[in-house]
Amino acid sequence: MAVEAKEILRRLKMLRSEMEQNGIDVLILVSTDPHASEYVHEHDKVTEYFSGCTSDNVTMIVEKETARLWTDGRYFISAAAELKDTGIMLMKMGQEGVPDVTAYLESVLEKGMTLGYDGRTVPAEKGRRFRKAAGDRGARVDMSFAPADRLWIGRPALPCHSVRVLSDEMSGLTFAEKLALVEEKMRDEGAMYLVLSKLDDIMWLLNIRGSDIECCPVALSYLLIGPGVADLFIQSGEVTDEFAAYAKERHIKIHEYGTFYEYLSGYHFEGDILCDSRESSDAVMEILRGKADVIDRPNPTALLKALKNPVEIANIRRTYVEDSVAVCRFICRMKHAEEPMTEMDAARLMDSLRGEIPGFLGVSFPTISAYGPNAAMAHYTPSEDGGSVIRKEGFLLVDSGGQYEGGTTDVTRTIAMGPLTGEMKRDFTLVAAANLRLLEAKFISGTTGSQLDMLPREVLYRYGMDYNHGTGHGIGYALNVHEGPQSISKSSAGGRIPVGKGMVISDEPGIYKEDRYGIRTESIVVCEEDGETEFGSFLRFEPLTFVPIDLEALDPAYMEESDIERLNKYHKTVWSVISPYLEGEELEYLREATRAFS
Amino acid sequence: MAVEAKEILRRLKMLRSEMEQNGIDVLILVSTDPHASEYVHEHDKVTEYFSGCTSDNVTMIVEKETARLWTDGRYFISAAAELKDTGIMLMKMGQEGVPDVTAYLESVLEKGMTLGYDGRTVPAEKGRRFRKAAGDRGARVDMSFAPADRLWIGRPALPCHSVRVLSDEMSGLTFAEKLALVEEKMRDEGAMYLVLSKLDDIMWLLNIRGSDIECCPVALSYLLIGPGVADLFIQSGEVTDEFAAYAKERHIKIHEYGTFYEYLSGYHFEGDILCDSRESSDAVMEILRGKADVIDRPNPTALLKALKNPVEIANIRRTYVEDSVAVCRFICRMKHAEEPMTEMDAARLMDSLRGEIPGFLGVSFPTISAYGPNAAMAHYTPSEDGGSVIRKEGFLLVDSGGQYEGGTTDVTRTIAMGPLTGEMKRDFTLVAAANLRLLEAKFISGTTGSQLDMLPREVLYRYGMDYNHGTGHGIGYALNVHEGPQSISKSSAGGRIPVGKGMVISDEPGIYKEDRYGIRTESIVVCEEDGETEFGSFLRFEPLTFVPIDLEALDPAYMEESDIERLNKYHKTVWSVISPYLEGEELEYLREATRAFS
Repeated sequence: MAVEAKEILRRLKMLRSEMEQNGIDVLILVSTDPHASEYVHEHDKVTEYFSGCTSDNVTMIVEKETARLWTDGRYFISAAAELKDTGIMLMKMGQEGVPDVTAYLESVLEKGMTLGYDGRTVPAEKGRRFRKAAGDRGARVDMSFAPADRLWIGRPALPCHSVRVLSDEMSGLTFAEKLALVEEKMRDEGAMYLVLSKLDDIMWLLNIRGSDIECCPVALSYLLIGPGVADLFIQSGEVTDEFAAYAKERHIKIHEYGTFYEYLSGYHFEGDILCDSRESSDAVMEILRGKADVIDRPNPTALLKALKNPVEIANIRRTYVEDSVAVCRFICRMKHAEEPMTEMDAARLMDSLRGEIPGFLGVSFPTISAYGPNAAMAHYTPSEDGGSVIRKEGFLLVDSGGQYEGGTTDVTRTIAMGPLTGEMKRDFTLVAAANLRLLEAKFISGTTGSQLDMLPREVLYRYGMDYNHGTGHGIGYALNVHEGPQSISKSSAGGRIPVGKGMVISDEPGIYKEDRYGIRTESIVVCEEDGETEFGSFLRFEPLTFVPIDLEALDPAYMEESDIERLNKYHKTVWSVISPYLEGEELEYLREATRAFS
Repeated sequence: MAVEAKEILRRLKMLRSEMEQNGIDVLILVSTDPHASEYVHEHDKVTEYFSGCTSDNVTMIVEKETARLWTDGRYFISAAAELKDTGIMLMKMGQEGVPDVTAYLESVLEKGMTLGYDGRTVPAEKGRRFRKAAGDRGARVDMSFAPADRLWIGRPALPCHSVRVLSDEMSGLTFAEKLALVEEKMRDEGAMYLVLSKLDDIMWLLNIRGSDIECCPVALSYLLIGPGVADLFIQSGEVTDEFAAYAKERHIKIHEYGTFYEYLSGYHFEGDILCDSRESSDAVMEILRGKADVIDRPNPTALLKALKNPVEIANIRRTYVEDSVAVCRFICRMKHAEEPMTEMDAARLMDSLRGEIPGFLGVSFPTISAYGPNAAMAHYTPSEDGGSVIRKEGFLLVDSGGQYEGGTTDVTRTIAMGPLTGEMKRDFTLVAAANLRLLEAKFISGTTGSQLDMLPREVLYRYGMDYNHGTGHGIGYALNVHEGPQSISKSSAGGRIPVGKGMVISDEPGIYKEDRYGIRTESIVVCEEDGETEFGSFLRFEPLTFVPIDLEALDPAYMEESDIERLNKYHKTVWSVISPYLEGEELEYLREATRAFS
């Protein structure tokens, strides 16, 4: 339920009073948690509490008389609506004439002023910029000012759920084996210690899972690795007997979650510490810098967990087959639906079909079910009251996924609900061709995500089109649905990382036409070796997703012979993998949907 | 004529004696000149003088008892041969177990020792590393030790040729207009001054040309730009009356070339200085750092000169047509040659056909004429005695270009001299398809060379093949045949620069099979705008080179329909552009060579 502007004004008044009492002239609030989590628990939604704005990637600056809120392009429209009448000025990041947070700080901070923020929720690389701006202007910094702790009445408690231990059969590598790999990387960097705050990395390394963040099977925790030590900070309420025994056997010392900062502050480090400033809080980095040399380099766990081992891949393949069956059944039902359905009906249908799969733990993200022009909106999800009614024409775009014991899934299909215009068919066909081009790519070892990104996008460029998101993100193994470090995209840092064997990545080009329609075709692929020649080592992708691409939406005039070959090859595989799982009407649907096309 | 090992030993002995007299324990010699020139005048071939090694990219380290010479993979074989019996140890850069120069310095320098080198010939970013290594080890540095000045008997004098002034009609932008653009970029960087050492950048800015370096129409010079000042350092022997008047009108103050360092040392800088450490010498940077804040950023002239203006492009187009005519005539003659020819005969024929073109000033690089297995050697040029005899089978690869008043050309065609194996035809076809794919690429503004590189290379990847060089380099306007800053390549720094309108770039994929054959098909293209849509601004390439791709070497089994369309489209254009210039046998050759293919 949206918060009334009047209540926001009251909360800001309390905030300013707290600031005054603590000598804070300029306050920064952020929407991030201490763990650099992409999705944050309600407990950490501080900017939402004080502004009413539900956006991600928010920075608020509150001063005596004014308040400003920065967010990015995805949220300009929704943020403007949510901030109405609150007196909070919306600062549209990246727009002409809008200063970024650092530039703004430099313009308002003066000698003698105090800048305050909660160093535990601000990422270190950001905190570094805040402190530099303050330093440049002769202002003081109080990085332990956390007003929400006192002022947020009714603040949701920290989540606390039992952790699960993964068996070796599910992990493929034991904790000891993973630790050895991590320690080797630490040695390469000259580090004696590693401090991890990012939850999925901690889960991966320890071979455990949690349920503390919606859609992400992670447990709130911190991990300190050192010579002969592994100190895990986790809420005691999450520690089952099984886990306590597991940890004891492996010499993992369990500490209470809330004692982490104190423990670090009192710790005697005898060598350099590897700590990634993009994935650690400013508070952590400040403590560490006061104690030893900090090597600010990428977490070694990031790349290690991206390269899935054969056991993980086998489980992932199996999970994706079952997940694909559910999606095929969903499409069949949508195609044959007689009663009108809303977007929410469709989303619930998809979720319930997944729900029937053994080992299903929940969705990996809130299902996107977008009909017609709604699909052109980047982060559209249908409202609880149902959203739009799906008519018998145009496109329905459904992007959904599940968390399972044996994997994390993510898939998008755009379904023709009836007649389409020629332009719609052309665009759908180009997106399909782009998707299949990347699926069938063969490339030399060392090729980066940014280079691979060109292959699907070029299909659209020929027609003066493009999509304003990346082509592919990594996916965790029963972990986060968005996982780095690699990225198949134009220009992100992850795009510079070579795509390697064992990486599980999405392949999701799209075309979006505001107020008209949106198309996205997403399959998940795994990178496999493709042999060595005198010229080097080669790699290819194999599909993990086996769901038909809607033949009714294709226009062969926009397909080259090789596109048609790729499509038929994919559909033939879909038929052979999925047909054993279907029967009756659903089997007939699949047969039709995967027939040879020309 | 190769220098005898005995003579090298004598020179090293003199060198060590000079080192001792000057208190130098470790001496570094480099193969670079003070201007970061890709091709260096004989006068600056210091490492060649003291080692007999003709390689590029050489660093020599001479100590009391030992001498080591580092070079890269292109030269391992030739350097090993040239260093035989000299006692100089060959250090193969990049090979396992071979320390790089900096690591080696750190291993031999000790407290109290003196490291010496000629700071005028060492690039600043390199010198910085040398000095850090010395500093780390407590050793002194003498960066004005230039033993060649005293010891090199018979050293070739500095080249000294008259400069030419380009007319405004040939330049498209006047010096004043270019200076305004440069000063705008300087202001963006917060610099009051700009110090240029790179010769082609100085030529571009001043709208002059020289003849001091073989194949490069540049004049030895330095340029200092400041508020209301433009100080040019050039040999008085190069200053014609025309140029003296031109400079005077434009308030360009001419100083004697050799007085540059002294002038800089005595100059009073009133603000920050922009100076690119990759393109300036260590001596220059050291002087500047002692005087003001140095902004070490890319030379603004680099990108400005890469974006050719419409006048330049018009001249370049015209030049390339005439150059292409010469290449077509060459291929015709090679195809119809009755007498056996050597590689050198072919090279001379190509050069002489260019020589007939009005405005031809000389070759842009030594013509590569490589028959059979020779074409698989990266930098093969036929020896003076003739090289291999060209037989009536297999491939002849000819890579050549010219310097003209209206442009610089570079083109490669691989010609079937007779029957080819199936594998040779397949490989030729894949290279042709790769070349045409890039030629016909359409892409969104912001796309980088590294991303474009994927398009041609992917054609080869499908067959487990690749080529170990970049796909495309920029080309100067009647300047250097290799020009940055952009690069169509996998991983060089230039690959990160967006390819923009007005860039003139090569498109040159290849396949090389050691001891068997080599194929390269290179055309030069210019980047043009391709319209705006709701999705952004798009760009495309247009060919500047109009020379047929040998139909006799193509195998349609390896061509998709779109490849054949692209080939026929290109050949149709070649026919319509070039046929007016040919007659008789040559016209008939062109008609056959550009016929519709399927």
